[in-house]
Amino acid sequence: MTIILSVNAGSSSVKVSVYETSSPASPPTQLAEASISGLTAPPAAFTYAAGSTNTKNEQVPHVDSQESAFDHILDRLQSSESLPQVSDKQKITHVCHRVVHGGDYPEAHVIDDTTFHHLQDLTELAPLHNASALAIVKACVKLLPKAKNIAYFDSSFHASMPDAVKTYPIDPQVAKTNKLRKYGFHGISYSFITRSVADFLGKNIDATNLIALHLGSGASACAVKGGKSVDNSMGLTPLAGLPGATRSGDVDPSLIFHFTHDAGKPAPGSSQKMHISQAEQILNKESGWKALTGTTDFGHISSSSDPQCRLAFDIFTDRIASHIGSYFVKLDGKIDALVFAGGIGEKADALRSRVVEKCRCLGFDLDQQKNEGVVENTVQDIGSQGARHRTLVCQTDEQFEMARQCAASQTL
Amino acid sequence: MTIILSVNAGSSSVKVSVYETSSPASPPTQLAEASISGLTAPPAAFTYAAGSTNTKNEQVPHVDSQESAFDHILDRLQSSESLPQVSDKQKITHVCHRVVHGGDYPEAHVIDDTTFHHLQDLTELAPLHNASALAIVKACVKLLPKAKNIAYFDSSFHASMPDAVKTYPIDPQVAKTNKLRKYGFHGISYSFITRSVADFLGKNIDATNLIALHLGSGASACAVKGGKSVDNSMGLTPLAGLPGATRSGDVDPSLIFHFTHDAGKPAPGSSQKMHISQAEQILNKESGWKALTGTTDFGHISSSSDPQCRLAFDIFTDRIASHIGSYFVKLDGKIDALVFAGGIGEKADALRSRVVEKCRCLGFDLDQQKNEGVVENTVQDIGSQGARHRTLVCQTDEQFEMARQCAASQTL
Repeated sequence: MTIILSVNAGSSSVKVSVYETSSPASPPTQLAEASISGLTAPPAAFTYAAGSTNTKNEQVPHVDSQESAFDHILDRLQSSESLPQVSDKQKITHVCHRVVHGGDYPEAHVIDDTTFHHLQDLTELAPLHNASALAIVKACVKLLPKAKNIAYFDSSFHASMPDAVKTYPIDPQVAKTNKLRKYGFHGISYSFITRSVADFLGKNIDATNLIALHLGSGASACAVKGGKSVDNSMGLTPLAGLPGATRSGDVDPSLIFHFTHDAGKPAPGSSQKMHISQAEQILNKESGWKALTGTTDFGHISSSSDPQCRLAFDIFTDRIASHIGSYFVKLDGKIDALVFAGGIGEKADALRSRVVEKCRCLGFDLDQQKNEGVVENTVQDIGSQGARHRTLVCQTDEQFEMARQCAASQTL
Repeated sequence: MTIILSVNAGSSSVKVSVYETSSPASPPTQLAEASISGLTAPPAAFTYAAGSTNTKNEQVPHVDSQESAFDHILDRLQSSESLPQVSDKQKITHVCHRVVHGGDYPEAHVIDDTTFHHLQDLTELAPLHNASALAIVKACVKLLPKAKNIAYFDSSFHASMPDAVKTYPIDPQVAKTNKLRKYGFHGISYSFITRSVADFLGKNIDATNLIALHLGSGASACAVKGGKSVDNSMGLTPLAGLPGATRSGDVDPSLIFHFTHDAGKPAPGSSQKMHISQAEQILNKESGWKALTGTTDFGHISSSSDPQCRLAFDIFTDRIASHIGSYFVKLDGKIDALVFAGGIGEKADALRSRVVEKCRCLGFDLDQQKNEGVVENTVQDIGSQGARHRTLVCQTDEQFEMARQCAASQTL
């Protein structure tokens, strides 16, 4: 038996799932799930579930960084009576790390010194997104010296996008030197979604065409043709495309210079190692729903009659419907399904209802009862029987997807 | 008889059309057309046509600014034997000025001191776009003190866009104070297109739904519902949306900070009166086809087998098709016609062919013979007979549209 950890580190949280697998052919079994949240709003809180053991939001005041969060989680896993498989840390042989920006890496990569330095260089492109994962990788090398660390990139799934989609109409020399192109993100999730929906439809992956929406505090849309990404709404960084909880999404590229005269200056908290302009800070962290409504809770926004909440809801559904129209054309109308996933995509039936209503001219239509029902399965049909194209909800699972790919790969 | 001048000033050129009109009800008759180009690449060149008089690219080395260009054109109009109607400058009673950014002005406005100062304030939002027109207005007040100057705004046609389209998901207070919203542009052209296509289709304007494309060195797309704009691809400034001759169009809003560390610093040529950041200079003036292929000549790009030209062609058609998909959804599939206009839209049959091919799943289809034929009429059908939706070419005319609105308005 092999024990795999899947680690998903954000700027304020660290999530770790523990899997057991016996052979590359069989899917991994989840043994435990642990997380620490609130790193940027202390005290941090520890949540854990394994077998009959359940801990929720236990305060862990001494945890104040990604490193100490990972250390704490490892200790708790090791001492958990419900998890004898990890009674010795040395039994953990594989650690999968979700890394947002993978640059030109077209697939997952075992992290050695060279890879690590390359990832550090990439952090310059996405300082707000890669830094947390790299902090955990560092901690992991120290705490689990014998484990194999593998980086799974949110960008890899989109390596298949055609050049005309990847290329920005800017100076090609600067673009090449500074690695400026559309990368696309949420790829680990889109990989999970594509495989799961193909399974559900009983189709081969390479014959599966989808418009997939990963809608969470970060939100994106993806056009999948023959199982491969042909477009994604995110860009050089996750900022482009759809708005999110604190992210503006697409705005006029000159807007930020009319927002502040200090757009290019370093943001507070920016360092020599990690350049973050005030523009990037404002557009990534101080915009989106939070700026419009005062909350990042889309459940509240979705049900509130407050005019700013209605406006945020209308903006989000307008931009999502626009992307669906674009990707419908990109796929030449040959769509197996429109798929909603991510925290909002899986929970917000009012949002799904509005978006699909907006796209009815393309042949999408919901069964309102199914749409309002509980989502129990990995993939669940919410479309009406007579609709030209199916509409599905998919409970995406990035940690499982990494463990699955890890188990299936040659690295075991 | 009333003599109306329509003035269209760009950063490097000034175009003036002369119209005569007898009553608000009858459309103006064009008497002459004069232009000076190459202001930023001297010597400037003068072109003129009135009756049998034809002058083409006559060098005018002493002309070196918008003001001197307008002065020169006025002198030539006055002394032209083919234009006795303007033998005395005082006969010019109305001058229509195309002004790109009109802020919150929902319609054309007679320019008095208050309006002029307001327009100067707006120049801060679009320094690269409004400054030339304001220079001409100034010259005009001096040279034609008795004429009524009327500003026609490229943004006014889009005042009808809904709030969810106009609003950026950013801090609403800063947005309000700094006037940061989507405005949309090319509105004078879209006004001409909407009226002309409604006429051609024999429909009332307020029952006309279009996806209109103004494709020139600046390019945009517009969704017209019931004769009114409901979306436009341009944004706070004309930079957003489709790429153009030297314009990037939409890019990741954080891209420019990875392009140069000096994004927020003033561009060379920027002044206290006219703030232009290096970012705005690079994305507006040093990107687009020019950056990718070395030329702004889309005719060349369209027919060349050079890989960079193919890439530019593919990028442009990809982005246009994406917008058509978005606007098809926005109009709920109820489209009277897809309309190509502007220099490229009217001339580039290869581009029209590729774009419509990409959008065939929406019910558009070309008659290739008609598409490759000469465009002789204001509006010409190029769609195949069996297509679900019509495809048209419209020879748009911003100068005529201003004169027409001027003649039809109460200001005569």
